[in-house]
Amino acid sequence: MKYNLLKGKRGLIFGALNEKSIAWKVAERAYEEGAQVALTNTPVSMRLGNINELAKKLNTIVIPADATKIEDLENLVQKSMEHLGGQLDFVLHSIGMSPNVRKGKTYDDLDYAYLQQTLDISAISFHKMLQVCRKADAISRWGSVVALSYIAAQRTLYGYNDMADAKAMLESIARSFGYIYGREKRIRINTVSQSPTLTTAGSGIMGFDNLVDFADRMSPLGNADAEDCASYVITLFSDLTRKVTMQNLFHDGGYSSMGMSFRAMKVYNEGLEYRDVKDDKTKQQKEIES
Amino acid sequence: MKYNLLKGKRGLIFGALNEKSIAWKVAERAYEEGAQVALTNTPVSMRLGNINELAKKLNTIVIPADATKIEDLENLVQKSMEHLGGQLDFVLHSIGMSPNVRKGKTYDDLDYAYLQQTLDISAISFHKMLQVCRKADAISRWGSVVALSYIAAQRTLYGYNDMADAKAMLESIARSFGYIYGREKRIRINTVSQSPTLTTAGSGIMGFDNLVDFADRMSPLGNADAEDCASYVITLFSDLTRKVTMQNLFHDGGYSSMGMSFRAMKVYNEGLEYRDVKDDKTKQQKEIES
Amino acid sequence: MKYNLLKGKRGLIFGALNEKSIAWKVAERAYEEGAQVALTNTPVSMRLGNINELAKKLNTIVIPADATKIEDLENLVQKSMEHLGGQLDFVLHSIGMSPNVRKGKTYDDLDYAYLQQTLDISAISFHKMLQVCRKADAISRWGSVVALSYIAAQRTLYGYNDMADAKAMLESIARSFGYIYGREKRIRINTVSQSPTLTTAGSGIMGFDNLVDFADRMSPLGNADAEDCASYVITLFSDLTRKVTMQNLFHDGGYSSMGMSFRAMKVYNEGLEYRDVKDDKTKQQKEIES
Amino acid sequence: MKYNLLKGKRGLIFGALNEKSIAWKVAERAYEEGAQVALTNTPVSMRLGNINELAKKLNTIVIPADATKIEDLENLVQKSMEHLGGQLDFVLHSIGMSPNVRKGKTYDDLDYAYLQQTLDISAISFHKMLQVCRKADAISRWGSVVALSYIAAQRTLYGYNDMADAKAMLESIARSFGYIYGREKRIRINTVSQSPTLTTAGSGIMGFDNLVDFADRMSPLGNADAEDCASYVITLFSDLTRKVTMQNLFHDGGYSSMGMSFRAMKVYNEGLEYRDVKDDKTKQQKEIES
Repeated sequence: MKYNLLKGKRGLIFGALNEKSIAWKVAERAYEEGAQVALTNTPVSMRLGNINELAKKLNTIVIPADATKIEDLENLVQKSMEHLGGQLDFVLHSIGMSPNVRKGKTYDDLDYAYLQQTLDISAISFHKMLQVCRKADAISRWGSVVALSYIAAQRTLYGYNDMADAKAMLESIARSFGYIYGREKRIRINTVSQSPTLTTAGSGIMGFDNLVDFADRMSPLGNADAEDCASYVITLFSDLTRKVTMQNLFHDGGYSSMGMSFRAMKVYNEGLEYRDVKDDKTKQQKEIES
Repeated sequence: MKYNLLKGKRGLIFGALNEKSIAWKVAERAYEEGAQVALTNTPVSMRLGNINELAKKLNTIVIPADATKIEDLENLVQKSMEHLGGQLDFVLHSIGMSPNVRKGKTYDDLDYAYLQQTLDISAISFHKMLQVCRKADAISRWGSVVALSYIAAQRTLYGYNDMADAKAMLESIARSFGYIYGREKRIRINTVSQSPTLTTAGSGIMGFDNLVDFADRMSPLGNADAEDCASYVITLFSDLTRKVTMQNLFHDGGYSSMGMSFRAMKVYNEGLEYRDVKDDKTKQQKEIES
Repeated sequence: MKYNLLKGKRGLIFGALNEKSIAWKVAERAYEEGAQVALTNTPVSMRLGNINELAKKLNTIVIPADATKIEDLENLVQKSMEHLGGQLDFVLHSIGMSPNVRKGKTYDDLDYAYLQQTLDISAISFHKMLQVCRKADAISRWGSVVALSYIAAQRTLYGYNDMADAKAMLESIARSFGYIYGREKRIRINTVSQSPTLTTAGSGIMGFDNLVDFADRMSPLGNADAEDCASYVITLFSDLTRKVTMQNLFHDGGYSSMGMSFRAMKVYNEGLEYRDVKDDKTKQQKEIES
Repeated sequence: MKYNLLKGKRGLIFGALNEKSIAWKVAERAYEEGAQVALTNTPVSMRLGNINELAKKLNTIVIPADATKIEDLENLVQKSMEHLGGQLDFVLHSIGMSPNVRKGKTYDDLDYAYLQQTLDISAISFHKMLQVCRKADAISRWGSVVALSYIAAQRTLYGYNDMADAKAMLESIARSFGYIYGREKRIRINTVSQSPTLTTAGSGIMGFDNLVDFADRMSPLGNADAEDCASYVITLFSDLTRKVTMQNLFHDGGYSSMGMSFRAMKVYNEGLEYRDVKDDKTKQQKEIES
């Protein structure tokens, strides 16, 4: 599956932690399609994961950067262009983290300093990156920027907590900056709202496995995985999608347009049935005991 | 709960079959709130239900009409105005039926003559009613028109079949005609997208009870029932909502904005667990038998 | 127009500056409908406007509070309940401000400290208020909370700047908290997305008058004004809309569902024509001069 | 710009009239990308346009078919597979026509026989095609189906008439059938909501040129044209977008996410100014005459 779709293009990829990461897969696919990519992550994530292996494989460098810090971003953008030998043609933002989720603070007991961090890391970092790029004129005409999002931006999922608000803001930033960068430089900015994906980030969320099962049975094509996502993002970076901008694009096997599938309902029905069975047993037990 | 919200107003209500019907409840509440209402249904539905009882209670008449026939609608509108003594201030459209569903034709094996009937009864009748009203100048300035819809217009539910397409069209008609009737006569047209409701119409749909259970556990406020719906529709008929038009308004206890609730997930989890239990039993059985 | 819709209810209203404010109108209408209301605003806004006049008129008090400060909110909620003699039945959040807009920082040159303030004032304050209320058990069962929003949360308008992202986050908070407060206490939380309104806040936005003209000509019913909005919000506070939650409700004369109206297009067409006229004149002038 | 994205794939293209048609461009691009395509249109359209030239260029055949007739579609699907030597990998539906628009019947004076034709040609033909394909098992596993839509499905544009309702229904059919075809055969079905495009079909709509101008100035990237659309559709037919289904994908230079752009507002402002100028002149004239 190699088409040279990104031949000669230069890209910057945020957020590859390990081989499960969507960003990792995107970087690999972009490279396969002929692009040169520069990688970046925070120093902490670089230690936790193995991004250096990816860099070796893709014959490139990792530029450490905290995406919430302007000076880090400025350095990153400068270094990327130097390394790649010119302006960026595409950028992937795949960053999200909620200290409230991590520390077990529920949504009705948020720590507001943590909320600020959630927003800064998961949403505002996207604006900062775009603003730094624009000031440095770092993205080429007709370039393409993608950020990864999740349907929690539209629909509440228990346990997803303040990340929902961060994703809603992220998608809004894509629109707001998409207008400005579009009219000036023809640069497009979109978010991809991906199926729940068993990455290291995803696994942090309470009851995530069963949620993934539900989404899979709801989606006529099943959940999209990290590799599917990488393929899709490649099309958004290519010259074939130049007029798509300011969109939130669901890449989810159809999940977002489903009300109820036969397969998911069947499991739910069995849950109801099981409750009846258990009620019956409890009743029988009580009768025996009485 | 009486506020005289519709004092002195005249209304026409389509689709009251029996005391379970949303239209029935709306008619009752409108009457309580000081309105005079005229009732209508098809001759067949009049025989199947007991709309005449409602008419007696509300001190009014039932004007039989097939809402797919222009001449019936013309007669209906004329008679309503005569009976009520003036132009209509509000109209409720609560009509839907799919011969494909009734005859067990699945969505990949539609009978196209039936589809035409589904559309004619469930969507085009709304346009016909509006067009007839407008030509007869039958709705007063700042009047309000509501049609009942369902979230299947946005998200696919197995078994809902061609009614989904009809509801999508119904909501589009509300927008399209809402523009015209709004700019000319300040008449507003909206759809209310209601929780799945255990009316006679609702019960026709396969596996409906468990779907209602799922929706109820997904919705933070639980499903909205027919009486809740009637109260809400009253506000839309009142003078307090004059600038709301061309909207599809979800009245569903929050369902439409939910991705997953804790309560619904719990039942789903038990369904998965039950499967494991059954798998275990089957395995044990096989081991015993072997 | 008095229905006693809010008879015996207690409410708290944020954001009344002067008689143009939507919050001001909502407070007046709520009072007319039989509610007791407590008012609040920041000390600065209290000086700039004349909220004390409103308090006198409604026979109530103003409790100064900075809605970004937890301790102020705690005091506010406590004092409100004391003054009103019980839990709150409804709350209106009508707060928004962007230092970036005020200081003329464009969206591609945001000051991030200002952005933090925009979010804190215009969105996070809503979460803080809800969290404080919930911890103090300050809102009664089946209570109703409304925050004011704007279509910029969905569609980009030049010059609206970081307020768009704040409104997107505000609407997300309404959903996220609506789930929690709904399942626990049956409290509903919605946002009303209002027509551009010539309040003191609205006037701050660049080219706002002509935008209001455009919206008015696009909307079949014309723009909704502050008084229309107050009437609508009253229905959302009443017991008639108990099952509506987690919704963003457009109250805009139909604007949000319009692609193009005849009236707005006509002005646009004249703008194109004018350009041609001016081009012609320039050409003639050049010919004369040459 | 050739990537072999559709190498070895077989496709069927409905609706190529002449070289302005989006379907024409898609057929050309698909061929360039390595696909074999079969073409179809109604006998009338075949005479009006020059599809045979396209067939010659793409080294293929045109199979005449009225897409509203099951027997025509059955023949078409059979012949296509015979000619192409196997199942179809992709299908494009680009069909729409409203006799009401053609005959100048406004939306408040619809001819219902014409409306039936509008729906049958512009929406139901899509279902018929899918149902015929499914019964004949004519689309390969992981195949891709696209229908062309327009934002009128969501937002009312004066003069677009009953085509808005047809497009709303078309998009609903994509979802409804997308569920069924997805779970069974992994076939995805999407609609592309394209910028207003100066094709022969588009030109039929009243005041279309200025609407195109407005859309162009609203869209940060400008309108997408037929060639842009073809490129985008190619990505949807490729193996890189396998998990995208049941979506309505805006391909419009950002238009759908814009509330107001600076460029469009400028023309509107000049329209308002021109009105003032003309008012002044009228006043001066009157003063002179008086």
